[in-house]
Amino acid sequence: MSKIAVLGTGMVGDTIGSKLIELGHEVMMGSRTQGNEKAKAFVAKHNGKASAGTFAEAAGFGEIIFNCTAGVGSIEALKMAAEKDLDGKIIVDIANPLDFSNGMPPSLAIVNTNSLGEEIQKTFPQTKVVKALNTMWCGLMVKPAMINGGDHSTFVSGNDANAKEEVKKILKSFGWNEANILDLGDITTARGTEMFLPLWLQIYTATNNGAFNIKIVS
Amino acid sequence: MSKIAVLGTGMVGDTIGSKLIELGHEVMMGSRTQGNEKAKAFVAKHNGKASAGTFAEAAGFGEIIFNCTAGVGSIEALKMAAEKDLDGKIIVDIANPLDFSNGMPPSLAIVNTNSLGEEIQKTFPQTKVVKALNTMWCGLMVKPAMINGGDHSTFVSGNDANAKEEVKKILKSFGWNEANILDLGDITTARGTEMFLPLWLQIYTATNNGAFNIKIVS
Repeated sequence: MSKIAVLGTGMVGDTIGSKLIELGHEVMMGSRTQGNEKAKAFVAKHNGKASAGTFAEAAGFGEIIFNCTAGVGSIEALKMAAEKDLDGKIIVDIANPLDFSNGMPPSLAIVNTNSLGEEIQKTFPQTKVVKALNTMWCGLMVKPAMINGGDHSTFVSGNDANAKEEVKKILKSFGWNEANILDLGDITTARGTEMFLPLWLQIYTATNNGAFNIKIVS
Repeated sequence: MSKIAVLGTGMVGDTIGSKLIELGHEVMMGSRTQGNEKAKAFVAKHNGKASAGTFAEAAGFGEIIFNCTAGVGSIEALKMAAEKDLDGKIIVDIANPLDFSNGMPPSLAIVNTNSLGEEIQKTFPQTKVVKALNTMWCGLMVKPAMINGGDHSTFVSGNDANAKEEVKKILKSFGWNEANILDLGDITTARGTEMFLPLWLQIYTATNNGAFNIKIVS
């Protein structure tokens, strides 16, 4: 079991953090300011098995860091942590750089020849960024068996092979079958999974159902 | 049966055109210049059931126009046709605006807040553009049964409901099940299917197999 930082107090952070606690990990939820109400509620509902702190405190606590912040604020959030709190650590980047500033549908704030995953890796070169789980609704991230008997696809991208193996172990503990976890390559492949989001949103809109995923068939 | 223009002499145009001929349609393949060698070979192999001409001649011939040109050249290709050759017609846009000018992987020349499908619709407002089939290898476009018993997903985007129905009929004649054809909405949803291409290319690279597709599972 590991000490894990979950940065972000939204639905994704709550879902990921709760699952990690259920699996026996120690979780600190990080937020911009101390005393964040959602972080306090998260700690309360987990009966002392979770803690909460600033982004910096949580990053310092975690051996592994899950980035569950809103993608357009992720770099800024991570910059609130000191280098010593980040260096050498795995950052599991679940965020997407969705820009809602011009309304719906969102565009991507980083796109095409760059990605949020790459930008985090470039900004914090001593970390090991693994893009993962950013292609689906958070409920499915931690409970793939919810649909199609758990038989659908997820992706990892990252420069460090060992870090990707560690993240795959976590995905398997969430219920993902090894055969459904596709390693796309280095962190530049985060472009593809982030650029899937517009299609994800359109499928969601067309079907009025967010509890779907894609399965690669061949 | 219809008179159909297939613009583009590459693998996609050849595959689509051959299937349309097999189904009994009259096909004219269009290319930039008269006497294009690939177009001549296409005509020859179909024993007089196909013809070839310039983009303008093919567009004028077709009641329906399939855009199978390279995406970065599609607007220019269509501009070689006179307005009277295009107005009122359905353009089935299969192209993706892949820009290989900076090597591999390609970026998208039009992306995020616009798409090739939209750009064609805006440039030729009297046509009915339907984005379709651009999310897979051309072999699967015309023979979905090649994998997974034909059970995988395809998309249509367009502003004209009747035009989308016409294109769905063609997709069904290719072997697509109605239940696997998802109407994403108006032509702006071409953004999503075009932005899927980077992930498509990464899956292809990671698996070394282009004969795959995605299936939406829920």
